[in-house]
Amino acid sequence: MIKKPDILEKKLGLSFNHSELFIMALTHRSMGAGNNERLEYLGDAVLGFVIAEKLYEMFPAASEGDLSRLRASLVNQGALAEIAREHSLGDYLILGSGELKSGGYRRDSILSDALEAIMGALLKDQGTSVCKEWVLKLFAKKLGGLDLKKSQKDPKTQLQELMQSRKSELPTYELIQMTGAAHAQIFSVKCMTNIKNNESCIGSGVSIKRAEQDAAEKMLKLIKKQIK
Amino acid sequence: MIKKPDILEKKLGLSFNHSELFIMALTHRSMGAGNNERLEYLGDAVLGFVIAEKLYEMFPAASEGDLSRLRASLVNQGALAEIAREHSLGDYLILGSGELKSGGYRRDSILSDALEAIMGALLKDQGTSVCKEWVLKLFAKKLGGLDLKKSQKDPKTQLQELMQSRKSELPTYELIQMTGAAHAQIFSVKCMTNIKNNESCIGSGVSIKRAEQDAAEKMLKLIKKQIK
Repeated sequence: MIKKPDILEKKLGLSFNHSELFIMALTHRSMGAGNNERLEYLGDAVLGFVIAEKLYEMFPAASEGDLSRLRASLVNQGALAEIAREHSLGDYLILGSGELKSGGYRRDSILSDALEAIMGALLKDQGTSVCKEWVLKLFAKKLGGLDLKKSQKDPKTQLQELMQSRKSELPTYELIQMTGAAHAQIFSVKCMTNIKNNESCIGSGVSIKRAEQDAAEKMLKLIKKQIK
Repeated sequence: MIKKPDILEKKLGLSFNHSELFIMALTHRSMGAGNNERLEYLGDAVLGFVIAEKLYEMFPAASEGDLSRLRASLVNQGALAEIAREHSLGDYLILGSGELKSGGYRRDSILSDALEAIMGALLKDQGTSVCKEWVLKLFAKKLGGLDLKKSQKDPKTQLQELMQSRKSELPTYELIQMTGAAHAQIFSVKCMTNIKNNESCIGSGVSIKRAEQDAAEKMLKLIKKQIK
């Protein structure tokens, strides 16, 4: 049985002036007219904005590419469905009989859409700043757990993308040395690009892969120094 | 020669508390550090939100698909560059020497990015509601010229997409009649789908194409009545 929406409203820390907006946010399109699709469109837009602004403030040294990646790691169907489940949103969804039978209340897409629709409904009901505050509370744990380092691409990928964006030839890697006993070898790899005087960097590591990443990281630093 | 940023500021009806934000918004990445890329990321997010909310209010009967299409018709590189040109933004851009020589101040992508960056800068300088108001003023003409009808896909495309989304067979069209003299013929076309009792609709028009669209439109209405 579907639980009463006002229980969810309280659980979410909300108090709607126009409770019909909240009901609409919980109503899946399988119910026909009066469903949450328009509110979801609105919620998606406000969510994208709120998280973008928050990340801009949280990471003043991050590039726009890093910021976009961080946002994508927070704002996606899986992450939204996870938050929806933490609040048992599925128990309150208003679904058509077909979706009800096939377990629509458990589906990521339906949960995530409904959560976005609630954001849209709150925006309409109480304006941008109340909505912003609520969204940030909802995402507080996920925002707190963010790690800029982890969200970054590995140095080889970063270097490759940088060269592509400059329409330069891709970097090449060459194994130049192996030292140490068979069970504890250290590899040295040279990374070459056609930047400036065909500069090269040497990296090392316990595998060729690690050594390449190390060399790419050094090359990235060198290039960034040049363009500053 | 680059014109002074404060002239542009006035022309845009803006008055920054932190003029360094405005300068940064005009600074292309070819200048290295302190460029507008982060502000553009922020401006892109606030612009998407402001236009989404405005369209939601302007078109209370539009579906979320129509709203998304309307937004995409307003918020894209070409449209943004057009607005930027109306305000001669190119004359004020701060570009590296390479971009300057190759005419970067005329390029759609650079103009559009800078305009979004100004939105981001205004958001940081004066908050959401001032920024929202300014963005809406900037887009007033384009918003006023919107036509929901024109932005919609034609009925045949809509019907095809609807059938695909239901994983149903695609509709078929059959010419069933031609009447009238050679210079003023009227075509009648039957549209068939496998929905319910294999219902069909007949459309007519001065060409086969028109008659097909008419039949598809009738079929869409029939289907929408069934799912309500």
